[in-house]
Amino acid sequence: MAVTLELENDGSIIVRDLISVQALDRGFFGKEYQGKKTQLILMPEEALYLMDVRNATVTKNGKEISFNMVARQFIDNKKFLARYFCYRDWRDRGIIARGIEEAKENYGRSPVIKYPYKEFAPIDVKARALFFSDDLMSIIDDDEEGKVIYEATWFGQHGTYKAKKHGRLLKLDAYETLFLIKHGNMKANISDKKLIKECSKRRNDFLALYEVYEDWRLRGFVVKSGFKFGTHFRLYFPGAAPTLAIEEWMHSKHVIHVFPRDAKMLISEWSRAIRVAHGVKKTFILAIPGEKKQQAGELDFVLYHRKKGGLIENPKEDKPKFLMLALSEEEEIGGEELAESIQKAKSFGLDLILAICDRETSITYYRVKRIELPKSKYEYYEIEWKQP
Amino acid sequence: MAVTLELENDGSIIVRDLISVQALDRGFFGKEYQGKKTQLILMPEEALYLMDVRNATVTKNGKEISFNMVARQFIDNKKFLARYFCYRDWRDRGIIARGIEEAKENYGRSPVIKYPYKEFAPIDVKARALFFSDDLMSIIDDDEEGKVIYEATWFGQHGTYKAKKHGRLLKLDAYETLFLIKHGNMKANISDKKLIKECSKRRNDFLALYEVYEDWRLRGFVVKSGFKFGTHFRLYFPGAAPTLAIEEWMHSKHVIHVFPRDAKMLISEWSRAIRVAHGVKKTFILAIPGEKKQQAGELDFVLYHRKKGGLIENPKEDKPKFLMLALSEEEEIGGEELAESIQKAKSFGLDLILAICDRETSITYYRVKRIELPKSKYEYYEIEWKQP
Repeated sequence: MAVTLELENDGSIIVRDLISVQALDRGFFGKEYQGKKTQLILMPEEALYLMDVRNATVTKNGKEISFNMVARQFIDNKKFLARYFCYRDWRDRGIIARGIEEAKENYGRSPVIKYPYKEFAPIDVKARALFFSDDLMSIIDDDEEGKVIYEATWFGQHGTYKAKKHGRLLKLDAYETLFLIKHGNMKANISDKKLIKECSKRRNDFLALYEVYEDWRLRGFVVKSGFKFGTHFRLYFPGAAPTLAIEEWMHSKHVIHVFPRDAKMLISEWSRAIRVAHGVKKTFILAIPGEKKQQAGELDFVLYHRKKGGLIENPKEDKPKFLMLALSEEEEIGGEELAESIQKAKSFGLDLILAICDRETSITYYRVKRIELPKSKYEYYEIEWKQP
Repeated sequence: MAVTLELENDGSIIVRDLISVQALDRGFFGKEYQGKKTQLILMPEEALYLMDVRNATVTKNGKEISFNMVARQFIDNKKFLARYFCYRDWRDRGIIARGIEEAKENYGRSPVIKYPYKEFAPIDVKARALFFSDDLMSIIDDDEEGKVIYEATWFGQHGTYKAKKHGRLLKLDAYETLFLIKHGNMKANISDKKLIKECSKRRNDFLALYEVYEDWRLRGFVVKSGFKFGTHFRLYFPGAAPTLAIEEWMHSKHVIHVFPRDAKMLISEWSRAIRVAHGVKKTFILAIPGEKKQQAGELDFVLYHRKKGGLIENPKEDKPKFLMLALSEEEEIGGEELAESIQKAKSFGLDLILAICDRETSITYYRVKRIELPKSKYEYYEIEWKQP
């Protein structure tokens, strides 16, 4: 039976009809209104959901009103429709979402993925590099020395990609060049400061990318161009070497995308980067370099999920599983903003779910999992595409 | 046998040794120097190539000099290394590249792909739409009318994506909303002018995207969100309808990425968009809306390719096949700049090849094929990943 809801003059949506109250309470919609168990107050998203797919009737001053007449009350709310369609999709899957204000404590359900660590072995580059500012690349033309550096440490590309005996130059990209000037005693036709200046002219996120590059390199990882996978870097775990690259276990399985705190990006562009990584079966690592702020960000819903065996979690018996940030395809998000939302989810001991509403109101979910990279001061997350 | 080259004081690279001259001429390196058949002048890329992979010796004032000593002469040239590595890769495949100045006439080797056309059938929307400015989306809550519009014309999304009997709202994105206000007599809580203003606040390329949306819609195509494929739009050919969507022949096979003339984009980000489309086996269409300028852009090399049967084309007997624009991963390109390079290739009757040098000097090639969309005033191109 369809339920009946009442839109009050102050915009709140109340259920007073007893049969409706009982039905909705059993379905985990609404909460007690003014302390009375016999009345419920609904979130706007709940009310619209009941109208949209459960044929609920809404009255205002005794007259029935349409979906848009209710929705219009909230037309100035930030991303109101994105929130609604994300809520709707979660509920359509038979699982429960509740208002974010119901998150109260640290639920301890946000596990950390531990990454390995190996002290960076010192290296002493004897050859001189020639840096080309317009190409952001340098060349070592000492064949012997270039080959030694390449094979021992996998800095640069000696010879030809995937045909290393062809050609005799060692090519270093800008991140490698700067790292070897700083940590490998390398001499070049440019100082580290000048190099940073030149590179930042070409891409203003250069320093943020370098910070991430250096951080992983100093922890023993090999970090190479992620161009073929649509990201900034691809990663090899400590112990990788180009001479071993053809072995299956040496393949790169992780890519890194750097999102500077002061950068803004369209959700559709951000999602595109994750999609490429997913398409080539790589784990997508999001890096947010720079200093952590302890500001708590925005979140939208508390999510319950499924237990083992298929039963659903519910707010009366279970702890929440995730927190949702609802976004839309054409919205911009900032690095700092995203970091703050992740931080807030972490304070509740839950993983963040990014729910993205596209222009056809189809929802894509990404789960943000925390990474622990030993001795690093930056934040890294695995972003995983999720079918709830 | 390794050849010997001479670097002159003015930076030109000359071959005087007769055996070297004959060997290089047979290999399609260099051209006659000062009208003499017994001497050759080389492009810097040719000289470096011979040093890098063919063990050539270069002398200056009688003394042998290193690769970097030669390269240093050209260190201030724009994208010198990207050009070199793109040249190198093409030659490494056994095929010929020559200086761009050798393109002289219209070679008539740039075929046009003709797209179909169907006059847009007028539509008269009776229901009123409620537009949510922060969501860039509008809703028609008249179930009957919404369903009719959706099923007849595939504007918006009625009910739920891929489960259309669930839910009773018609959701229109901003492009659809504006189009129906302009061409479908639709009334809404916002004027077309105000809508453009609101949307442009959120994404400054809104109008460029709308121009492309409108252009294809008016030619009978169905244009929907390309979010799932990492692009701006996905395309269905004239005759498509949502009620037929499950049939194999109705699947979207084309996606559109809009590159406004005044926008700039990192090559790595641009390439990422093509990669997603390629990964999901869609044809990637590049749209450059706005007025054509007849300025000729930059190009780098004339390319010869292979004949049927596997023999290679060569500059002594054959016409060139493509023109190359060499780019690097971390370079920015502008919409106008790209349009001008395509325009210049077209004036020679050749397809443009974009060669992208990544940070490991591995090269990715994209072929730009011209599209003819009847009655359109904009430029569209299919971008195809190419293994030369």
